[in-house]
Amino acid sequence: MVERSSEIGLSTDLYQLTMAASYFQLGIDGQAVFSLFVRGLPPERSYLVAAGLDDALNRLMSISFDSDAREYLRSTGQFRDEFIESLKSFRFSGDVWAVPEGRIVFAGEPLLEVRGSIIEAQIAETIVVNALHYATLVATKASRCVMAAPGKSLVEFGLRRTASVDAGLIAARSSYLAGFSGTSNVLAGERYGIPVAGTVAHSFIEIFPSELEAFRAFASTYPGDVTLLIDTYDTLRGARNAVIVAKELAAQGRRLASVRLDSGDLVALSKQVRGILDEAGLSNVGILASGGLDESDLTTLERSGAPINAFGIGTRLGTSADVPSIDMVYKLVQYAGEPKLKLSEGKATLVGPKQVWRQSSGDGPFVRDLIACRDEPSPGSDWEPLLEPVMQQGRALPMPALAEIRDRHRTEYERMPANLFSLEHPVAFSVSLSDELQAIQQRTTDEVRARELGE
Amino acid sequence: MVERSSEIGLSTDLYQLTMAASYFQLGIDGQAVFSLFVRGLPPERSYLVAAGLDDALNRLMSISFDSDAREYLRSTGQFRDEFIESLKSFRFSGDVWAVPEGRIVFAGEPLLEVRGSIIEAQIAETIVVNALHYATLVATKASRCVMAAPGKSLVEFGLRRTASVDAGLIAARSSYLAGFSGTSNVLAGERYGIPVAGTVAHSFIEIFPSELEAFRAFASTYPGDVTLLIDTYDTLRGARNAVIVAKELAAQGRRLASVRLDSGDLVALSKQVRGILDEAGLSNVGILASGGLDESDLTTLERSGAPINAFGIGTRLGTSADVPSIDMVYKLVQYAGEPKLKLSEGKATLVGPKQVWRQSSGDGPFVRDLIACRDEPSPGSDWEPLLEPVMQQGRALPMPALAEIRDRHRTEYERMPANLFSLEHPVAFSVSLSDELQAIQQRTTDEVRARELGE
Repeated sequence: MVERSSEIGLSTDLYQLTMAASYFQLGIDGQAVFSLFVRGLPPERSYLVAAGLDDALNRLMSISFDSDAREYLRSTGQFRDEFIESLKSFRFSGDVWAVPEGRIVFAGEPLLEVRGSIIEAQIAETIVVNALHYATLVATKASRCVMAAPGKSLVEFGLRRTASVDAGLIAARSSYLAGFSGTSNVLAGERYGIPVAGTVAHSFIEIFPSELEAFRAFASTYPGDVTLLIDTYDTLRGARNAVIVAKELAAQGRRLASVRLDSGDLVALSKQVRGILDEAGLSNVGILASGGLDESDLTTLERSGAPINAFGIGTRLGTSADVPSIDMVYKLVQYAGEPKLKLSEGKATLVGPKQVWRQSSGDGPFVRDLIACRDEPSPGSDWEPLLEPVMQQGRALPMPALAEIRDRHRTEYERMPANLFSLEHPVAFSVSLSDELQAIQQRTTDEVRARELGE
Repeated sequence: MVERSSEIGLSTDLYQLTMAASYFQLGIDGQAVFSLFVRGLPPERSYLVAAGLDDALNRLMSISFDSDAREYLRSTGQFRDEFIESLKSFRFSGDVWAVPEGRIVFAGEPLLEVRGSIIEAQIAETIVVNALHYATLVATKASRCVMAAPGKSLVEFGLRRTASVDAGLIAARSSYLAGFSGTSNVLAGERYGIPVAGTVAHSFIEIFPSELEAFRAFASTYPGDVTLLIDTYDTLRGARNAVIVAKELAAQGRRLASVRLDSGDLVALSKQVRGILDEAGLSNVGILASGGLDESDLTTLERSGAPINAFGIGTRLGTSADVPSIDMVYKLVQYAGEPKLKLSEGKATLVGPKQVWRQSSGDGPFVRDLIACRDEPSPGSDWEPLLEPVMQQGRALPMPALAEIRDRHRTEYERMPANLFSLEHPVAFSVSLSDELQAIQQRTTDEVRARELGE
């Protein structure tokens, strides 16, 4: 675990510090603007849900280098003493604009832009990409799950196979903001106020002399509405044992809330279990399913009419299994007022600070995005800007609560064209560049090519 | 970031605590044994490199529930007060056996077994799976990279697209133990003593009026041997600019160590760059390549004779991109001395505490593994056990240093049959069950089926 504030400073790629040292020694300290964006989306994704900003800003505010950190840097032999001394007072004091968490964004659109002295704006790179990349991937996958199972309750179960404790927290938060109703992660419940859910594992059932006794034991001790895990030995027998316990609970004025399936053919089993429950007059007992599910399984289950009321979504969400990474980058776009870009094959960047404008059709859906230079005027009254100032001179502006971000995502989802969200045949959302941005882009490219390639 | 020790207690799935509460209230406190293993390997993996044990043991020793944590649990309404009070003094006091980090393991073999009272052994689940799963995935992928590029230096560059700061640390540690020579992650350097490496980003080149001036600026300020990034505008022009700077450095008695390529056709470009360097008498200047690489690219590059000396391996390693998760589980195998298992479809477990024995052919390679009951005698003098006691009554036994683990992996690799490591056509290593384990497994299955299925 990361425990010292200065560890946020060291939790970076070495080259951020070797570059900083070089700038320091040369007295290079002009204002730079960097832009964070995703180069392209894989075929499995038609949009992204912005997430991780809260974490990114908190980390930026925490960057420091205590005496242990500076001593370590000295020990590497890669830095001169004066630079290491200068880190003693280092604080991030730049400005940040960003797309608020929960909004939907597309390839090429900046999610975040940093303006600051070249040293601090460069040092921010590893921190902001690390904070936004995974959070955005999980929020996006969670959003797809929500869309694949409309009206169903989804609970995040991924902690055990996320990459770390921190990653588990991020996964729980990102899936909640994208519309999940809860998490199994207790720490996420404590920290973010996300509702927590959980029942028992198979081991609990196995401890007791029989499944029925295990069900009775749990029902007798758990103070709330009971969920029973019914697939330890045989799912249909498990359902019949659950019926027995449901009736015993009813006699005490209590209730069996649901049964949980965690293996086998969920379509066939859920229908059979539904039949057993209904036949016993337990039509108000829900069915919760889990076990390696993601949006693709949810689509299949929904289409096949599987009578499942809630889903636990774990490993595939917490690892964004089908798209475990995206090409999210943080690139210099302006230095000392001049637009900047590189020519590396397939890795061009849009120069200068930018704004993304989203056009709505009156009260109807959003219709298109326009990426423009930051200082261009609004394209019109039916356009709204996506990037907002979120940090000024190193201090984060007030950040919205998680519930507010969750509402924002829901609203954004409702205002986007429905065909964007088709899992199989999404219709691409229109994203174009303003005339002014195109002109500056072309001019800068020509200048760089002339200078560096002699063209 | 996780900062309080009690957050390790809360960083768990809710059901661990609801089960614990039920056991507490019922006075159930028998000794349980849980086994952590991987159910099956995907076609992309023929073995796993055990990793994450050090972290798992440290986390087990840190589990506690402070007053804030207990207050939160109370607020959920899912626990009775007496149970919450009991958490005040909770400490993990169980015993752990495990396969040491760096060893090679296969599907079905326990990587770790916990023995303790049912409450503590159950609560350990989320913690140990979380600690071992990602660390093992990354160590395994790193090991494959090392085998794909024999003799080459590999540096871990993944931090920015790992899931969190903690995940980045785990990725750096796991790849180093599997044979990488360094990392870009400065905090991993400080914490684990892993050599750190890095040069400059494209942004550095762009800040200066020309690439050549940027190279000179970096060379003049960086105190060590210099690496220059040459693909910002045009890789071959970049190589020629690097030659100019190399000669200027030589005149000062200094040295250009290498040039770095980060885009384009690495086979063609590395050959052309090698030609430019050799022609200038710079055959001792190396070529470092990076950019979305993993073991599959390394194989292609090596086969095509690309003259690359070192590789930066980032995102695909840090996300284990082709296998972002494996079915690593933690299952009850014994309670109060009785073997335990579930019958859920495709999810059978091997009962009881176990040992894995690995047979060697004299001084030759290892030939097979045997999974046996823990208390069975050694199968013979040419067999060695994989699982060792690593924690007794909640206290970790002395753990090996990272360098020692790295050596162990190297030794293990050398003693395994070479055909196991073929990336395309690996030959499976033989893993079988002892007669005694098979007999107990069959007897327990029969008993459970008779009891729960009436067979």
